[in-house]
Amino acid sequence: MELKKSVVYQEIIFYGMAAIAMGIIVGALDALFGEVLILITQFRGQHIAWLLPFLAVAGLAIVHVYQKFGKNSSKGMGLVFTAGNKQDEEIPKRLVPLVIGGTWLTHLFGGSAGREGVAVQIGATVGYTFGKKIHFQDSKKILLVAGMAAGFAGLFQTPMAATFFALEVLMVGAIEYRALFPAALSAFAAAYTSHFLGLEKFSVDLNVDLPVDLSFAGKVVLLGIVFGAIGGLFAKLLKNTKGWLAQKITDPYRRIFVVGVLLTISLFALHMGRYSGLGTNLISASFEAGTIYSYDWVLKLVLTIVTLAAGFQGGEVTPLFSIGASLGYWLAPLFGLPPEFVAALGYASVFASATNTFIAPIFIGVEVFGYDTLPYFFAIVSVAYAFNNGHSIYAQEKAKIDHLR
Amino acid sequence: MELKKSVVYQEIIFYGMAAIAMGIIVGALDALFGEVLILITQFRGQHIAWLLPFLAVAGLAIVHVYQKFGKNSSKGMGLVFTAGNKQDEEIPKRLVPLVIGGTWLTHLFGGSAGREGVAVQIGATVGYTFGKKIHFQDSKKILLVAGMAAGFAGLFQTPMAATFFALEVLMVGAIEYRALFPAALSAFAAAYTSHFLGLEKFSVDLNVDLPVDLSFAGKVVLLGIVFGAIGGLFAKLLKNTKGWLAQKITDPYRRIFVVGVLLTISLFALHMGRYSGLGTNLISASFEAGTIYSYDWVLKLVLTIVTLAAGFQGGEVTPLFSIGASLGYWLAPLFGLPPEFVAALGYASVFASATNTFIAPIFIGVEVFGYDTLPYFFAIVSVAYAFNNGHSIYAQEKAKIDHLR
Repeated sequence: MELKKSVVYQEIIFYGMAAIAMGIIVGALDALFGEVLILITQFRGQHIAWLLPFLAVAGLAIVHVYQKFGKNSSKGMGLVFTAGNKQDEEIPKRLVPLVIGGTWLTHLFGGSAGREGVAVQIGATVGYTFGKKIHFQDSKKILLVAGMAAGFAGLFQTPMAATFFALEVLMVGAIEYRALFPAALSAFAAAYTSHFLGLEKFSVDLNVDLPVDLSFAGKVVLLGIVFGAIGGLFAKLLKNTKGWLAQKITDPYRRIFVVGVLLTISLFALHMGRYSGLGTNLISASFEAGTIYSYDWVLKLVLTIVTLAAGFQGGEVTPLFSIGASLGYWLAPLFGLPPEFVAALGYASVFASATNTFIAPIFIGVEVFGYDTLPYFFAIVSVAYAFNNGHSIYAQEKAKIDHLR
Repeated sequence: MELKKSVVYQEIIFYGMAAIAMGIIVGALDALFGEVLILITQFRGQHIAWLLPFLAVAGLAIVHVYQKFGKNSSKGMGLVFTAGNKQDEEIPKRLVPLVIGGTWLTHLFGGSAGREGVAVQIGATVGYTFGKKIHFQDSKKILLVAGMAAGFAGLFQTPMAATFFALEVLMVGAIEYRALFPAALSAFAAAYTSHFLGLEKFSVDLNVDLPVDLSFAGKVVLLGIVFGAIGGLFAKLLKNTKGWLAQKITDPYRRIFVVGVLLTISLFALHMGRYSGLGTNLISASFEAGTIYSYDWVLKLVLTIVTLAAGFQGGEVTPLFSIGASLGYWLAPLFGLPPEFVAALGYASVFASATNTFIAPIFIGVEVFGYDTLPYFFAIVSVAYAFNNGHSIYAQEKAKIDHLR
C-alpha cells in the first residue's frame, strides 16, 4: 500500500513534468504555425485575385506530398483517434510538417478552413512521442490527451477549454479523469508559451447584464435549438459530403483539382474571397458592428465543408466560430437581444453541437468573452448540445474505433 | 430516420418538462428541509447545554424508526447508487421523511454532520418515482440523475455545480451525457424554487486580484496537494471508521448509543458545541475574519467522521466546506496570501478531493465566490483532484456496484 502510493505520486509528478515540457514545445510550434498563418491571411487579403486561381494546383501539391512522404499521415485526425484508443497505429513525426505545410497552402490560396486540426495534430504527435518513451501504464494515451490539450491551448490561448476539449473529443460521452492533471498543466504551459512568443489571443469583453426572466429563458432555449441544429447539420453534411465526393471521384488528385476549380469560381463570385480562410473577418464583423449578410453563415458553412471534403487541410473550429457568430448576429434583432451577445452565444454553441462536446464550449465562451458570462454559456450550450441530433465532426473516427473494439 | 429523429426530439422535450416539474417539487422540499434546519441550528446554538446530552438517545430513535419503518432505506446513498446503476432495487418514497427527520434530530441534538445527503436522497427519490412511470430507455437512470442535481441545487442554489455533481458522483470517471440537459433544467428549476421560497444562498464576493507569477503558481500547487491529501484522508478515514465501528459494535442501537455518549462528552469539552452541526460557524468565521483555531479543521474532520460512522444522518459536504475553509484560513499566513482567498480555495478543493469530483467543485467555487475567480478554482481543483489518492466518500457504494456488474 505504501509502496503503491509512492509509485502513484511518482507517476503524477513525472507526468506533470513531462506535461510542462510538452506544453512548452507544443506552444512554441503553435506560435510558429499561428503567426505565419496570420501573415498568410493578411497577404491573401491583399492579393486574393492572384492567389485564388491557384487553389486547385495547391491542392495537387498537398495530395502529392502526403502521398509521397506521408506514410499514414493522410488519416490526420483519424490517426490521433486510433492512437488515442490504444490501436497499434504509429503517429509519425512527419505528420507535423505535413499538416502545417498543407494548411498554410490551403489558406494562402483561399480555401475555407480552420486551423485547430493542425494544432491538435502537433500536440498529439508530441504527446505520442513522449508517451512512447515512458513505460507507465496507459502513458501513451494520457500524454496524447495532454498533447492535444496543449495544441488547442497554444493556438487559442484558452487553456481550460483546451483541457476539456482534449478529454471530451477523444472519449465521446466519457471523460478519462486520470489525464486531467497532465492535460491542464500542458495546456497552461502551451498557452503561456505561445502568448510569450507573440501569438495573440482573440477575446471580446462582452459586458452584458441582461434581465433573466422567463421570456429571456425562452429565447435562450429557442436560440440553443437553432444553434444546436446548425452545428449538427454541419457535422452531418461534412461526413456525407466527404463520403459522396470520395465515391464520385475516387482519384484524390482528380478530386482535389476538380473541386478546387469549383471552389475558386465560387469564392471569387461570392464577394471576392469573403469566405476564404478562417472566417475571422466574419467574427470581427460580428463583434465590431461590421457588415454581416443574412447568408454569410450559410455560405461559410457550405464552402468550408466543400474545402475540407475535397482534401484540403486545416480544421473546422474557427469556421464553426464564425458560422455561429454571424448566424447569431443575424438572428439577434428577431429576438430583440444585443447582436454581439447572440453572436457570442452562437460562437460557443455551434462549436459545441458540431463537436458534440459540452464542457469545452462553456469554457471557450468564458475564456473569450469574460468569466462573468458563465451562466449564459452554460445555458445555451446545454440546449445546443441536447439538440444536435448526436452528430459530431469526430463521429466518423469514433465510430470506426468502436467498430474495431 | 425521420421517425427516429422525431422520437428523439420528443424524448428531449418530454424529459425537459419532467425535469422542470421535478425541480419545482424537489426545490420546495429542499426549502422546507433547509429552512427548518436553519431554525434548528439557531435553536441548538441557544440551548446547547440542554440538547447535547440527549444525542445518544436521539440516535436510538433514528435507528429505531429506520429499522421499523425503513425497509431498505438505511442504505441511504448506497440505495441511490445501486438504483442509478440499473440494479433492480427500489427507492421507497418513505426514504424522504426518514432522512429528513433523522437529519433534523442529528442536528438538533448536536451531531456534526452535513445536509446534502438529505437533499440528494430527496431528489433521487423523486427522480426515481418519475422515472418508473415513464417507459423511455434508461428513463429511470436519467431522471434519477436529474433528481439528484435538483436536490443539490435546491439546497445550495448552485445549479451548475449541482448538474455536474450528479453526473460525476453517479459515474466515477465517466459522465453520462444524455442526462445533462434534464439535469441542468431540473437543477435551475430547483434552485429558483427554493430561493423563491425563502431559502438563502451562501455566497461571498471574493474580489481577488492577485499577480499570477511562478511563485504564486507554486503556492497554489502546494496548497492543492495539502487540500487534496486532507480530502482524501477524510474519505479514507470515514470508510475505515465505518467498517471498524460496525465490526466492534455489531448491534446498531448499541453502536449509536455508545458513540453518541462519547460524542456528547467530546462536543461539550471541545468549546461547548463549536463542532456541532453543519460547520457554518467555521465558514462564517473564515470569511468574516472571525476566530479560527489552528486545530478547528482537525476536530471538525474527526467529529464529523465519528458522527456519521455511528449512524447519524445528514451528509458530508457542508462539513467538508468548513474543514477546507478553516484549514485554508489557518494556512494562508504561511503562504503570504489573503486568508479569505485561501479559505475559498480550501472550501472547494477539499470537497473535490473527498468526493473525487472535478467539475462540480470548480463550479461550486465560482457560484459561491464569483465567476471571475474561475481560473483559481480550475487550478486548485486540478491539483487537489490529482493528489487525493483516488479516495472518495462515495467509493464504497461505487466499488460494490462495480463488483456486481
